[in-house]
Amino acid sequence: MPAAADVLAAAVRIRGLVRRTPVVRAEWDGVELFLKCENLQDSGSFKLRGATNLVRTLDAAALQKGVMAYSSGNHAAGVACAAQRAGTKARVVMPNDAPQVKVDNTASFGAEIISYDRFTEDREAICKALTAETGATIIPPFDHDLTISGQGTAALELLEEISDLDAFTAPLGGGGLMAGCSLIAHHRQPGLRLFGAEPELGNDTWLSFRAGEHKVIPPSETIADGLRSPSPGKITFPILKQHLEDVVLVTEDEIRAAVRWLATKVHLVVEPSGAVPVAAIIHGKLPANVRRVGVIVSGGNIEPKQLAEILA
Amino acid sequence: MPAAADVLAAAVRIRGLVRRTPVVRAEWDGVELFLKCENLQDSGSFKLRGATNLVRTLDAAALQKGVMAYSSGNHAAGVACAAQRAGTKARVVMPNDAPQVKVDNTASFGAEIISYDRFTEDREAICKALTAETGATIIPPFDHDLTISGQGTAALELLEEISDLDAFTAPLGGGGLMAGCSLIAHHRQPGLRLFGAEPELGNDTWLSFRAGEHKVIPPSETIADGLRSPSPGKITFPILKQHLEDVVLVTEDEIRAAVRWLATKVHLVVEPSGAVPVAAIIHGKLPANVRRVGVIVSGGNIEPKQLAEILA
Repeated sequence: MPAAADVLAAAVRIRGLVRRTPVVRAEWDGVELFLKCENLQDSGSFKLRGATNLVRTLDAAALQKGVMAYSSGNHAAGVACAAQRAGTKARVVMPNDAPQVKVDNTASFGAEIISYDRFTEDREAICKALTAETGATIIPPFDHDLTISGQGTAALELLEEISDLDAFTAPLGGGGLMAGCSLIAHHRQPGLRLFGAEPELGNDTWLSFRAGEHKVIPPSETIADGLRSPSPGKITFPILKQHLEDVVLVTEDEIRAAVRWLATKVHLVVEPSGAVPVAAIIHGKLPANVRRVGVIVSGGNIEPKQLAEILA
Repeated sequence: MPAAADVLAAAVRIRGLVRRTPVVRAEWDGVELFLKCENLQDSGSFKLRGATNLVRTLDAAALQKGVMAYSSGNHAAGVACAAQRAGTKARVVMPNDAPQVKVDNTASFGAEIISYDRFTEDREAICKALTAETGATIIPPFDHDLTISGQGTAALELLEEISDLDAFTAPLGGGGLMAGCSLIAHHRQPGLRLFGAEPELGNDTWLSFRAGEHKVIPPSETIADGLRSPSPGKITFPILKQHLEDVVLVTEDEIRAAVRWLATKVHLVVEPSGAVPVAAIIHGKLPANVRRVGVIVSGGNIEPKQLAEILA
């Protein structure tokens, strides 16, 4: 189980290898949003943080054999980018219906891409078979101490810059981002109210949070393609249970409206997954007395065509 | 004629009244771009800087009578926002074919909007008649010492953060932004190579720069609606002549490609005018030995429909 100190260690480990992204202030109906712009991160999402944090703990022998990941997209690109910067090879297992923009983005960092069918095949099994063959190290997308603590550096940087927040929110996929952020957020500001945001169509953590135990949902079709996890992680979920005040849900239309608002009023391109916590705020899913809220805008890798449709 | 010291004074005058926008690094074919994100500025463009700098020199009697501006859009919103923050009333004269997003943006700051036909009516004359009636102070869009020095603060902030640039570029409309930026850029870094960027369809400064004297062009139809000035300013042009190495031109398609690249690869929403200097870089209009270039991304107020068309 990672702790806040691991996030602090991660911040030192990844310094200079990961971009310190800007915090952009926006306002919605009297609520101040402080947007930590991981859509402006190298590789286009926060995933570079956790990937770099893990890759940079590997020794020369491990780096020589390369790294491997399974991912719907952003983790793939984050691992590919982290690997390239560490001078090692990345192999990534991606669903054959992953957004093309994410496949291209991953390939642009020199990674080898292995496709699979997410409705019929088990990506973890494919990945394990390949690592047995190559000796490559698997970089887990969320359920690993170093992944979690790396992702937490996004909240650390936000809290270093913005004080007096009364709440913090981030998207919930497997829970790595929110778990890492929760650890460091409560370390720095014990009373900060933490909310995970999830699509109704991918409500695995919402269901699990309410049940108090892991729940598994069928493959999800939400446009928030980074949040299609069937269940929260074994390591992330206990952290989320301990730290979150609540998990809130947003509809597909609310996600689209948030993407549109961010593009047209804030002038940031944010992918649907990254817009989920913003959707929660602008659609009144957080308690009404939340007035200053930190938000991780987790990524910007949206298909141009999809963005065009949302704007039209 | 304003000087670099006026930009320094402006920086102090507008501090806390105007957002310090982030600088985002991007890369194109080995060239590093440092994008000063005035698309993330309050009111959606750099125009708030010059407007605030002028409005904040007015005395109580002048503020009581209000301010007035003529503008295709961003200056209107900048003046409206600056006036609202100073507790005074703004009246703005806008062409009846100004982008709706810019009209709405201006109105959102409580300004009164007066429409005119830019093909048959003279906006300066309309504005002068209205000021004679109301006693309001005109806030000129570019040809005023305080406007120019206010706009220059964008380059000052960029150069405070990024060193070792070998070039700097900004869009050319009336020339207020580029003139203010030139003054402070050569004050801080005398050898910095400065390039103004202009649409081919609105090449008034390019023509004037080559002729060495003011040239006037007919009303322009470029999609870079902020750069449709018929000629450079009386104050701005001598500054541009003295400081610029060159004025470079881009086509409408090159502007669209830059808007698209900024949205899909950098994840910033930039209006066509703001994308003009980026278009110049990614289409090879700057000298080949320019490797680290500072760029003012001047604004983000693009019609959602237009952005959708560019992305589709």
